[in-house]
Amino acid sequence: MKEIMAIIRMNMINRTKKALTEAGVSSITASDALGRGAGLIDMKLLKGAEQGYEEAISQLGQSNRLIPKRMIVIVSKDKYVEKIVKTIITVNRTGKSGDGKIFVMPCHDSLSVRTGEHGEETLDDI
Amino acid sequence: MKEIMAIIRMNMINRTKKALTEAGVSSITASDALGRGAGLIDMKLLKGAEQGYEEAISQLGQSNRLIPKRMIVIVSKDKYVEKIVKTIITVNRTGKSGDGKIFVMPCHDSLSVRTGEHGEETLDDI
Amino acid sequence: MKEIMAIIRMNMINRTKKALTEAGVSSITASDALGRGAGLIDMKLLKGAEQGYEEAISQLGQSNRLIPKRMIVIVSKDKYVEKIVKTIITVNRTGKSGDGKIFVMPCHDSLSVRTGEHGEETLDDI
Repeated sequence: MKEIMAIIRMNMINRTKKALTEAGVSSITASDALGRGAGLIDMKLLKGAEQGYEEAISQLGQSNRLIPKRMIVIVSKDKYVEKIVKTIITVNRTGKSGDGKIFVMPCHDSLSVRTGEHGEETLDDI
Repeated sequence: MKEIMAIIRMNMINRTKKALTEAGVSSITASDALGRGAGLIDMKLLKGAEQGYEEAISQLGQSNRLIPKRMIVIVSKDKYVEKIVKTIITVNRTGKSGDGKIFVMPCHDSLSVRTGEHGEETLDDI
Repeated sequence: MKEIMAIIRMNMINRTKKALTEAGVSSITASDALGRGAGLIDMKLLKGAEQGYEEAISQLGQSNRLIPKRMIVIVSKDKYVEKIVKTIITVNRTGKSGDGKIFVMPCHDSLSVRTGEHGEETLDDI
């Protein structure tokens, strides 16, 4: 099984939830986050800062803002990871910087608190 | 070592913290989350939506709510994972849909910012 | 690739962001969390509680507070993990209890929503 962690635009959460539901994914966890991707850093400024230019360093401080984002976590059977990732990408892609990132991480076990069951059977079939 | 991530009911956080403390677990991180498990989706509605019935799709949109939850993260030595998971299950089980989920994920290393030490010795003995 | 999760003091987030930016790390995700490390538990009290002393148990309840913290997540190529971890430790170390913890976890894949690309090339070169 895998943990799928997606960081998406705040205003995309409802569409993403809906697309995931329609794809059969019922179990999801969402939370607020602040994020910044490579697109939000001026690389020339960064280079200048690395070389010790005080002015570049101070400007870096100014543009160093984190943007409100939503983080979604879904734990999925291995065989559904590709479908879930594609669903998230399709609904969230605008082609502009800030569309988001998806990370796929190994997950060792999943347990249902209600039933005490563990393993793949505690995860959705989609 | 393992990362134990539990998603539980909001009103269970204090009891869970207390049970974990009494089990010897001192290091925990908690955060707010919104969640939905399989129990909150009407599977007939979902089936209808998959088959393209507009009415089912729109109702799915309505019931598509996420419920406020708490997320707890504990990083533990392998040998304590079972005890910690059991502690969380015991205190959180009501037998009703929404009791929560626990995910156990591999963790490669742990570092103490204060001491710079890393590895298992930076984790609690319980 | 690895997921680096750091739990640091709230008032350290700006300095940490700046240090990471200057180290070349542009993609980070931050969120609010509540945390508690081993330093905040009185171990004698805990021992008493384990042995069933009611008084110790009730006091444990009182001191059982979680402290507001910030959680940072960075997904990095393997070769940069050490530099990123050192950057976070250097800027956050005060030598006092509560400086924070860093966990390094395996990450299977990373995808850019904007481009659809996946793998190491979606991660920063620093």
